[in-house]
Amino acid sequence: MPSIDFWYEFASSYSYPAVMRIAPLAEDAGVTVNWRPFLLGPIFANHGWADSPFNLYPSKGRYMWRDLERICEKEGLPLSLPPVSFPQNGLKAARIARALRDDGLTPDFTRAVFKANFVEKKCISLDNVLAEILQGLGLDAEAVLAKAETDLNKAHLRADTDEAMRLDIFGAPSFTVGDELFWGNDRLEDAIEWAVKRG
Amino acid sequence: MPSIDFWYEFASSYSYPAVMRIAPLAEDAGVTVNWRPFLLGPIFANHGWADSPFNLYPSKGRYMWRDLERICEKEGLPLSLPPVSFPQNGLKAARIARALRDDGLTPDFTRAVFKANFVEKKCISLDNVLAEILQGLGLDAEAVLAKAETDLNKAHLRADTDEAMRLDIFGAPSFTVGDELFWGNDRLEDAIEWAVKRG
Repeated sequence: MPSIDFWYEFASSYSYPAVMRIAPLAEDAGVTVNWRPFLLGPIFANHGWADSPFNLYPSKGRYMWRDLERICEKEGLPLSLPPVSFPQNGLKAARIARALRDDGLTPDFTRAVFKANFVEKKCISLDNVLAEILQGLGLDAEAVLAKAETDLNKAHLRADTDEAMRLDIFGAPSFTVGDELFWGNDRLEDAIEWAVKRG
Repeated sequence: MPSIDFWYEFASSYSYPAVMRIAPLAEDAGVTVNWRPFLLGPIFANHGWADSPFNLYPSKGRYMWRDLERICEKEGLPLSLPPVSFPQNGLKAARIARALRDDGLTPDFTRAVFKANFVEKKCISLDNVLAEILQGLGLDAEAVLAKAETDLNKAHLRADTDEAMRLDIFGAPSFTVGDELFWGNDRLEDAIEWAVKRG
């Protein structure tokens, strides 16, 4: 079965529509999705950026929020702007998403966190917000939070971010099929088509 | 009749597919296109960039060329990579394109310059390359080159670039319908749709 790696960052605004759209599109095309949370911070630091480029370059930032509004309207996705802050610190969420991988719960957890950020205006770096999301999925929040903070799980997430760098990923969301890289929510359909034809 | 302003820069790689695609798409939709050559240099300087971001951030640059290859393949557009240099200095070409506006020849001239850059690997800042393109359009090259370099025409192009800044344009190609801004070749269809519905 063809497959695609879906690289996303919990702080990333354009990752929101991709997170909400990818599962049904991939299923219709018969493509398996590997959900790959990673951290953009170390990659942006390599570019010399200490903040999101949408904050560093205000014109780009203003455009991004308006563009995201239009995209969400088109896709029928709810969106509440502005978010509680931008970018939010997605480190804990990313660690939890990584810890839930073997249980197959990464997609459900990810969608719930993006909804909390971009619809419910919650602060996704807070333990109580993350615990509530985990409980909503029927999980033992305390146990998952503890697993997320183990050295082994942290090392997994670091290795995934290193892999993203090796794949020359510079932003989120990104999609890879082997070494073929697609960047941006608006390349999701192309990436799935690529996986079907050549994956 | 609804209309759209099409902002492009002769040095810009993603302006190439937009330049080649916009006329038939707009015609089919019954939308008039105002071709607005402008200069990205002053806008990038405001961002603190002394070069194209595709050169400043090598990962983004590598991705852009591969993405452009895929786009051109999909659209059936010829593309010869790498170009003779990137970004090329598009100042003279932009002045000529502005000077030809009242004669309605800006679109034909623009398409010929982008073909020279991205298909024929020519240096589009050279007078003899530009003169050959003008002659190919049946024009008196010497007269057009002289008109392009008049103070009045230079002032027109500066005013157009100032207008782009007021519209919060930060990259090329961009499309505006009133104050509504769309950025990137992949927003061309959305911009035309916007012009039809609300222009």
